[in-house]
Amino acid sequence: MNLQAPQDFAPQSAVAPNRLTATHALEALKTGRLTATDLVKACLQRIEERDDDVRAWLHINAHALEQAAKLDAFPHNQRGKLHGLPIGIKDVFETKDMPTTFNSPNFEGHQPGQDAAVVDLLRAEGAIILGKTDTTEFAAAGRNAATGNPHDTRFSSGGSSAGSAASVADFHVPLSIGTQTGGSTIRPASFCGVYAFKPTFGMVSREGFKIYANTLDTVGWYGRSVADLALLADVFGLKESIKPAPGAATLRIAMSLGPYGDRLQPESVHAMEVAADRLRKNGHEVTQLELHPEFSALDHHHRTILHREGAAAFRNLARRFGSDLHDDFHHRVENRDGRSLPDLRDAYDAAAKARVQFDRLAAQFDALLVPSAPGYAPEGRHPGDPVFNAMWTLLGVPCINVPVSMPDASLPIGVTLTGPRFSDPSLLAAAERLAPLIDRAPSPDA
Amino acid sequence: MNLQAPQDFAPQSAVAPNRLTATHALEALKTGRLTATDLVKACLQRIEERDDDVRAWLHINAHALEQAAKLDAFPHNQRGKLHGLPIGIKDVFETKDMPTTFNSPNFEGHQPGQDAAVVDLLRAEGAIILGKTDTTEFAAAGRNAATGNPHDTRFSSGGSSAGSAASVADFHVPLSIGTQTGGSTIRPASFCGVYAFKPTFGMVSREGFKIYANTLDTVGWYGRSVADLALLADVFGLKESIKPAPGAATLRIAMSLGPYGDRLQPESVHAMEVAADRLRKNGHEVTQLELHPEFSALDHHHRTILHREGAAAFRNLARRFGSDLHDDFHHRVENRDGRSLPDLRDAYDAAAKARVQFDRLAAQFDALLVPSAPGYAPEGRHPGDPVFNAMWTLLGVPCINVPVSMPDASLPIGVTLTGPRFSDPSLLAAAERLAPLIDRAPSPDA
Repeated sequence: MNLQAPQDFAPQSAVAPNRLTATHALEALKTGRLTATDLVKACLQRIEERDDDVRAWLHINAHALEQAAKLDAFPHNQRGKLHGLPIGIKDVFETKDMPTTFNSPNFEGHQPGQDAAVVDLLRAEGAIILGKTDTTEFAAAGRNAATGNPHDTRFSSGGSSAGSAASVADFHVPLSIGTQTGGSTIRPASFCGVYAFKPTFGMVSREGFKIYANTLDTVGWYGRSVADLALLADVFGLKESIKPAPGAATLRIAMSLGPYGDRLQPESVHAMEVAADRLRKNGHEVTQLELHPEFSALDHHHRTILHREGAAAFRNLARRFGSDLHDDFHHRVENRDGRSLPDLRDAYDAAAKARVQFDRLAAQFDALLVPSAPGYAPEGRHPGDPVFNAMWTLLGVPCINVPVSMPDASLPIGVTLTGPRFSDPSLLAAAERLAPLIDRAPSPDA
Repeated sequence: MNLQAPQDFAPQSAVAPNRLTATHALEALKTGRLTATDLVKACLQRIEERDDDVRAWLHINAHALEQAAKLDAFPHNQRGKLHGLPIGIKDVFETKDMPTTFNSPNFEGHQPGQDAAVVDLLRAEGAIILGKTDTTEFAAAGRNAATGNPHDTRFSSGGSSAGSAASVADFHVPLSIGTQTGGSTIRPASFCGVYAFKPTFGMVSREGFKIYANTLDTVGWYGRSVADLALLADVFGLKESIKPAPGAATLRIAMSLGPYGDRLQPESVHAMEVAADRLRKNGHEVTQLELHPEFSALDHHHRTILHREGAAAFRNLARRFGSDLHDDFHHRVENRDGRSLPDLRDAYDAAAKARVQFDRLAAQFDALLVPSAPGYAPEGRHPGDPVFNAMWTLLGVPCINVPVSMPDASLPIGVTLTGPRFSDPSLLAAAERLAPLIDRAPSPDA
C-alpha cells in the first residue's frame, strides 16, 4: 500500500510533518520544533503529489500559507487550542472565504458570506482551514464524491464524507470535519483506515451546514488517533459525561454484531473477532450482547425519518431548480416511496423508546464493540451501505471508528466503539485505552 | 383603539389594500382588481405613518416597489401561489438582499449571501419580502425588540417575533414569518390580536435561520384569518394530516387550562370561558380535559433543553465576541444554572413519552382549546412569560392562536387551538370553522 511508502519529505526529521497526528503536530508547534508554515507546506505538497489520483478536495485555500505565516508570528500566550493546525472541511459547511458547493452542480462557485459555527470555532482556536473536501451531493444522495480510496483508488473512500476521510488517511491534513446522517462519518473511516468520531446528537452546532434530516444530521470528525478526536471534542465543548471515565484495569466490553449481522461480509466478522481477541488477550472482559429484538426495526425507522425529513430539507431547492436538481431530491420532496405520517410518528416514538433501552443497557459497560461497515470499501465510488451505522445515528449515541490493523488485508477495516448518549468524554477515554490494542499498525509518527 | 380608526387610504375602495387579509388580497390580485404595486404602496404608506411609534421593522426592502412592478407585468399563467403579496420576515432568517442582524449589536449590517429556505420558497411563489422585522436578540434572550403593541405602544407586542406579530396587527403587511422556541409565535399573536400558526415540529425547514434550541425551534407565521395561515401551510408543504378533517356538524372540543392554570390572569381565564361559551352556543361540544399529572414537569424539561441546547448554539459566538456578546448567551454556554446531562437526557425522554400520551388523548377530539398567554401584554418591552406555550412547543404539536374579540377589553387576547402531531391540515380545517365563532370582531375587509 502506498501509505506505507518511505518518507519523501522533511529529510531532517524522522516523520514528514503532514504525517504527524494532530496531537503530535500541536506539540511540535508549541515547542517551536515545527512552524505552521512548514506544516502547511508539507500538506500542500502531499496534496499536489496525490490529489490528482485521490481527489479528496473540491477547493484548496489559496491563502493557507499567508495565514500560516501570520499564525507563526503570533505570541505564544495568545494562541488558541489548534494554533497552526491545517484542517479539511467537508464541502457542506459554509466558509466565508471559500466556495461552498455541496458537490451540487446547482451550487457551483456558491459563496456564502459567513462561516458555519464549527468553522468559526476552529478558526477562533487558530486552525487553518486548508480547503473543502468532496462529498456525496448535499451529504445526502444525487452525485457521489469523486474521491478514491487512498489505499487503492479503484475502490470507494465511502460517503458522504469521502474527501474528509481520504484527506486524513492519505496524509493531506491531520484533521478534518465531516457529518453523519446515516453512516457518513464512521463508514468512510472504516474504508480508509482512520479514526473518526460522531458525538452524541445535538451537542455540536450544525449552524451553517446543509441539513438533510433534522433529527439525524450530526457533525463528525477525523483524526489519526483517539487523542486527535478528543482534541476537537474539547474545542466543541464536549467536556462533561453522563458516566465516569473508566478507572478499572479491566474494562468491560460488550460485543454485538447487531440486528443486521447476516449482512456482514467475512472480513467485517473477522475484524470484530480480531478486535475482541486482542482486547481479551490484553486483560479486558469482552461479553456477547443481545440487543432488544425491537432494535431490528430501527433501520427501517431511520429510513422513514430520513426520507420524510428530507422533504422539508429539499423543498425549496426542488421549487427553485426544478428538473435541474437531481431527481433523488425530488424523490424525497414528493415522498415517492409513500412513507405515511403515522409511520413517521411511529418511527420517532420507537426511536425515543429504544434510546432509553439502549442507554440502560450500555451504561453497564465501558464500551460496546460493534461493526463499522458491512465489509471492505466497494469498488467504484458508491458510498456503501449505512446499515451498521444508521441505528446508532438514530439512537444519537457517540461512536468512534478504530482501525483494525491486519497486515495482509487488501484494504482497511474498522470497528466501532459506542456507549450511551452523553457519555462522549468517557467513551473517548475508554477508546484511548482500547484503540492501541485493536490498531497495532506502527503509527506514522511513533 | 387606533386600529378601529376609519380608513385613510384608497378612497375608491371600501377597504385599504393593506388591511385586506392575505387571501382576499390574493383574490383581488388574481382578478386584476388590485395590483402588487398598489398593495405595496399602501403597506409602505402605513409603515411610514405608523412605524416611528410601533417600530415593527429593522429594515425595509428598498426595491419592493420595483419588484412589485415586475410581478405586475408577469403573465397570469406563470404566477406563483403568493404572487404579489408583501410579507414581513423576522430578522433571524437570512435574506440575500437585505441585512440579517438577529437584533444583535454583533451583527449590525451583517449581509448573508443567500436566502433562508422559507424565504426562498416565498420568493419562488411570487411573494415580495417587504422587510425584516424586529425580534428578541437571536430570538432567544439578550436585547428585547423595540416594537410596541400596535393597540397601545406603552405595552409589549410580545416576543421574540415582536415585529412580525405587530406588523400584521397594525396593517403594515398581510402576512409575516416568525419562529417559536418557547412561546415566540403564539404569545405575540395573543398580545397583538392576530392569527398565528406554529406547525408540527420539523415539517418546515429551518435552513438559514439562527438556531437557539435544536429540538424546539420551529418556523411560525402570522395572518389575519385561518385561511391566511392555511395559505402558507400549503406553500410550505403541510398538505397531509394524520387524521381526517372534521366532518361532523358538531365538533368535539376539549378545553384545558393546563398544568399551570394558577398562573393565568383573570383576563385569560375569561377569554377561555368566553371562547368555550361561544363554541357551545354554536352547537359544538366543549368538555373539560384533565392532562396527565406528569405534564406539569414539561415546562421544567423545556427550560433544561432550551438552556443546554443554547450552549451548542452560542458557543462559537461566545468564543468570537467574548464580552461584547450579551451575557445571557455566555450564561447558556457556561451552563450557569447547572443543568446536568442526566437532567437533559431525562427531559428528552420525558418529552418523548408525553408526546405519545398527548397524541392519544388529542386524537379523540377535533381540537383542544388552551390558553395562549398568561394575560394581556405586559407594560414595556418584555416578551412575556412563555409558560402557556413552551409545553406545546416541546410536544411539537401544531398550535393556532385565535383572537377572542371582547369589545370592552383594553388590549387583545387570544386562545390556542391545538391537536396531535402531524394533524396540521385537520387542525386548520377545524379552526376555520371555530375561529369565526370565537373572533367576532368585524373583519377589516369583511
